This record gives sequence, structure tokens and C-alpha cells, in this order.
Amino acid sequence: AKNHKDISMAVIRRLPKYHRYLKELLDREVYRISSKELSLMMGFTASQIRQDLNNFGGFGQQGYGYNVEELYKEIQKILGLTTNYNTVIIGSGNLGQAIANYTNFQRFGFKLMALFDTNPKLIGMKIRDVPIFDIDELQEFIDENKIDIGIICTPKEFAQDIANKLTKAGVSAIWNFAPIDLKVPEDVIIENVHLSDSLFILSYLLSNQEE
Amino acid sequence: AKNHKDISMAVIRRLPKYHRYLKELLDREVYRISSKELSLMMGFTASQIRQDLNNFGGFGQQGYGYNVEELYKEIQKILGLTTNYNTVIIGSGNLGQAIANYTNFQRFGFKLMALFDTNPKLIGMKIRDVPIFDIDELQEFIDENKIDIGIICTPKEFAQDIANKLTKAGVSAIWNFAPIDLKVPEDVIIENVHLSDSLFILSYLLSNQEE
Repeated sequence: AKNHKDISMAVIRRLPKYHRYLKELLDREVYRISSKELSLMMGFTASQIRQDLNNFGGFGQQGYGYNVEELYKEIQKILGLTTNYNTVIIGSGNLGQAIANYTNFQRFGFKLMALFDTNPKLIGMKIRDVPIFDIDELQEFIDENKIDIGIICTPKEFAQDIANKLTKAGVSAIWNFAPIDLKVPEDVIIENVHLSDSLFILSYLLSNQEE
Repeated sequence: AKNHKDISMAVIRRLPKYHRYLKELLDREVYRISSKELSLMMGFTASQIRQDLNNFGGFGQQGYGYNVEELYKEIQKILGLTTNYNTVIIGSGNLGQAIANYTNFQRFGFKLMALFDTNPKLIGMKIRDVPIFDIDELQEFIDENKIDIGIICTPKEFAQDIANKLTKAGVSAIWNFAPIDLKVPEDVIIENVHLSDSLFILSYLLSNQEE
């Protein structure tokens, strides 16, 4: 198997999808699968799948298929899902609460330590036993707890200020849901979720179908 | 310019990002930009950008750059953002309400006509003047209003049933936020938002940085 770092980012970006389908197979107690079957499920070509999975080596056998569990575990390891991360959510409105309620993330090692907001009606509340604190306590909370990931769920106009506060307080990564591309120091990892990008692809497909 | 249909899906998937950056330039009243400047902003290579934008033809001039407004308008047209779409949201919890509050979508022609839920506490409420109805009224509402897109914001276990109801009622497309890959008839367009895919990429970057 190649060293992770030699795997191209294009392949890495496909790994969460493999991870998702392999998990589904394991849940259905399927332990062996061919590249052709995976191809039918996932909509990638079998050759693409063989090429992708070759990067991790040793799990496919000619005429016998892939060992689903080993492949799943290897992909989990590459994606860093065997580590635990402490997270905080900034912005505890509908979106922040929706993310906090998404128990799937906890299962993969992302532990939500606290939410933050400026709204006095929200401060003091709990979401699934996780408290909502005043945003003024953010720096101190990050100092006292080892927080790896800050999740920004604020309106667009506050997002850059929050990103500055998070990086100043020393978080390693930001998961940003505000519809703006944030500027952060080079050593801070940022992953933006642009919901509209996905909606616009839907719109493209819809408008081309209707023609 | 090429016919839309001859543009590869890989290029199409990058268009929302171009759209986003060109919009930002227009907001800043920048009307001309070189592939090199765009490259610095967007993190694509200048050659990738020239290659992508060549598909739409005629907006780049050697030594003079691209006409931001024309390029923006052309990309809007290709993405089908010059059309209006009627949408409904099924599942009016935190996520559904967050999407309903996202006014950006309305600006690009996605009109939210109604939300639906099974929770009696939510039914009858309004989110930004849009009513929440009982899920039992879904079929009738879609019959009476021309609904193009159903947005699924329910928990995972109800999502496939809702997708069946939506396709039976005749929507053309489904935007799915439930963490499950839905099965729909071939003529129904589906775009899944898998939030965990994005989080897992963040996790990959984080775990490789820390090594």
C-alpha cells in the first residue's frame, strides 16, 4: 500500500463515498464485493474503482473481490477517523442546532464540547446535553479544553470575525457553513460547505433535462 | 461557445465556484480579470481556468482578461439560474428551518412554496411567511402548485418514503439532506448533500497535518 501522502487529493475526495458504501455493505453483512458490483452501486466505472483502491493495496483478489471490512478499516484510517476530535459550534440557530443533533458525527469521533451564541435566549440552553455558552467565553473555553475543530454556523457577516477568534484561540481546523470563503492563516485547515453549489448543480441538471 | 451539453460534468461541477467568485468580483465592482488573478483567488491553475472558460468562448482577450459580467451571466444561464423553480421542504425541524431561512436561494430563483412536517407543534407555523403543512397534504399541494424541487430534511429513516411520495406526486428533482443515498426513478434528478463527506475530508487534512 502507498503511503497516504502519495495518494492524490482527487482520490482522497472520493474516499468518503467509498467509506459510506462500504459501511452500508457491512451493515448488510456483505463481506466480499467485486469492483463490478461496487461500480453498479456507486456509479463509478469498475476500472476507476480498481485504480482508486489499488492505492491501498492487498484487499482485492482476482475473481474473489475485495474484503469489505479490511478496505473499510483502511479507508477509516486514511481519513483520520480512528482519532478523536473535540469540536465547538459557533452560531446556535437552526443550522448550529441541526449540526449538534447530527449524532452520526459523534459516532465517528467528533465530540461536540460546546455551542456558542450571542443570543441571551439561547445562552444557558443545552442541545443533547451540550451547553450553549456566551460567545465571549469562546477564547477561555478553547484555552481550557483542547478544541481541534471550530464549526461556523453564524450568518455570513459574522463568519470572518469568528474565524479570526478561532484561529487566535488556536484551533487547528474550521468547518465553515457560512456562504463566504474565509481567510485564515496557512497552517489552519479550512473546509467550506457551500450548500448553493450543490443546489446549482441540481438546477443545471433540471434545466438541461427540461430543454 | 460550445453547446452546454458538450461541456463535461467535471467542468459543470466547478461552475458554481466560478459563479461565486465572479459574483464577489461584481459586488466589488471589478469588471475585468485575468486568468492569473482568478487563479490566485480560486486556487485553480491559470491554465485550468483558461481551459474551463474556453468552453463558453469569447469572454477572454489576450492581455486584457475576462469580462466578469458577461462570464457571470453566461455561467448563470448554463447553470439554469435564469429560470424560476418552485420548491417545498419536507421535514421542518432545525435543518428544514435553516434551509427555509437561507434567503440566498430565493435570490437565485428558488421559490419556497411550503414546508411539511408530521409534528403538530410545527404544523400551522410560518417560516418567513411560508406555511408549514401536514405531510398528508403533500400530494394535493404538489398537484395544485407546480413544484419542481422537493428538499428532504427529514431523519434518515423517513427519507426514502418521502422520496417515493415526491416522485409519485411528480416533482422533477430532489435535493436530499438525509444521510442516505435515495433510490428514485431514472427521470427524477437527485442531488445528495452528504455533510459527513466534507467533515471526513477535514479529518483527513487534520490527521495528516498532525503526523
